[in-house]
Amino acid sequence: MEAPRPLILITNDDSVDAPGIHHLADCVRSLGDVYIVAPAHPHSGQSAALTVNAPLRITELPSEKDGIRLFTVNGTPVDCIKLALHTIVPRKPDVVFSGINHGSNSAVNVTYSGTMGAVIEACMQGIPAVGFSLLHHSMKADFTFSTAFVANIAADVLANGLPAGICLNVNIPARVMPEGIKVCRAARGHWSDEYKRYLDPHGVPFYWLTGRFINDEPDAEDTDEYWLNCRYVSVVPTLVDQTAADALKALASRFDN
Amino acid sequence: MEAPRPLILITNDDSVDAPGIHHLADCVRSLGDVYIVAPAHPHSGQSAALTVNAPLRITELPSEKDGIRLFTVNGTPVDCIKLALHTIVPRKPDVVFSGINHGSNSAVNVTYSGTMGAVIEACMQGIPAVGFSLLHHSMKADFTFSTAFVANIAADVLANGLPAGICLNVNIPARVMPEGIKVCRAARGHWSDEYKRYLDPHGVPFYWLTGRFINDEPDAEDTDEYWLNCRYVSVVPTLVDQTAADALKALASRFDN
Repeated sequence: MEAPRPLILITNDDSVDAPGIHHLADCVRSLGDVYIVAPAHPHSGQSAALTVNAPLRITELPSEKDGIRLFTVNGTPVDCIKLALHTIVPRKPDVVFSGINHGSNSAVNVTYSGTMGAVIEACMQGIPAVGFSLLHHSMKADFTFSTAFVANIAADVLANGLPAGICLNVNIPARVMPEGIKVCRAARGHWSDEYKRYLDPHGVPFYWLTGRFINDEPDAEDTDEYWLNCRYVSVVPTLVDQTAADALKALASRFDN
Repeated sequence: MEAPRPLILITNDDSVDAPGIHHLADCVRSLGDVYIVAPAHPHSGQSAALTVNAPLRITELPSEKDGIRLFTVNGTPVDCIKLALHTIVPRKPDVVFSGINHGSNSAVNVTYSGTMGAVIEACMQGIPAVGFSLLHHSMKADFTFSTAFVANIAADVLANGLPAGICLNVNIPARVMPEGIKVCRAARGHWSDEYKRYLDPHGVPFYWLTGRFINDEPDAEDTDEYWLNCRYVSVVPTLVDQTAADALKALASRFDN
């Protein structure tokens, strides 16, 4: 009996309507059977948020491509992974891919990223998982140069898996053919000047998120920010378990009683 | 000139109406001036989600207690921290506390926790930060036994700070006087049987999140799950930077080109 084709589950946070997720599916569909289970509406900045107290719906849409089935869920990227594993896919997927996000998820932005929230969820469930993001926010972003890099990383992870508890956060420079791939660490940083203030027609203020990212270590040459600036694809191995193992002893001597 | 009193910023994810946040404020208000900036509505399971494309409002409410000012934001716990730092507090707070959450944030639940999303945001901004959670979901939970433990941990962190990039995830057993405090690592695990399926009046299915937590290492004696079962307060030092530093070399040899 022939071995079944690999099962590939794909989601994103920009919704089923974003070109990036369909480009991702095209990059990998020669590798196996593809299930796309994506949010019905955009969920950027939703991190690992999940819907705890509202009903979720699954809708299957017609797919125009062989080997791809297409579903939406009226929830977050994490909801998509959880509900897909519970109800939609016929068996545990061999791999989960998320993206291709329209916009960067480098550095500390992994914390806020719905794209990576889904990846961390899959990793927690024991499935090798990779998030892909292009450094271009526009829904008209050009994904052409990303194709070979996405396909190669995806094929490697499908063939060789990933260490337990570790997923990959892949960011791709925009508008250029990347120079290559670099495995690196996330740059430390934070956002600044984060809100624009307005007055509503009644003179009452409201605030809208904006701001700029500050790289707290611009001189470091081993970070994703550095290599993305050098036009490389950055690959950051990312831990599900956030325990600061190196700090356990010193803090135990301070707090244990 | 006298040194100013310490500035303490408090938020949570259960909203300004939850008793836990007011108990937390009572535990620490002898230590400094307290600003509570809390979500106007519950945001459990919102992780580090932020509001990227909608207006945010700040509302100051009357506070019944000396030394406490009380604000709500119509957003997530991370929105509360970001907007508080940008606009509400008079200077950078000396410490940020989040909680006391009505319900556990132990083990992998830190990933989904809005309580801890706010703490990680504060840590990213360079402020010592601690999340407190009681292992009791009810809005009628009894926080009495938590008081001395919360006050002691808060006073220590205010006096001595925390290592850069590390915040604390504190969980407190319910309904008992804790035996003591243990610094420990987060137990690895995942959720199972996560959805209940219903049919709506038209016969169309919908799904509601439920499930049970599976501790993947029930025999380990150095995890938060273990010590909580022994009736200890668990303190997990938690990293903002999720880079899997130990995996960089092996993965570089596989992907770099």
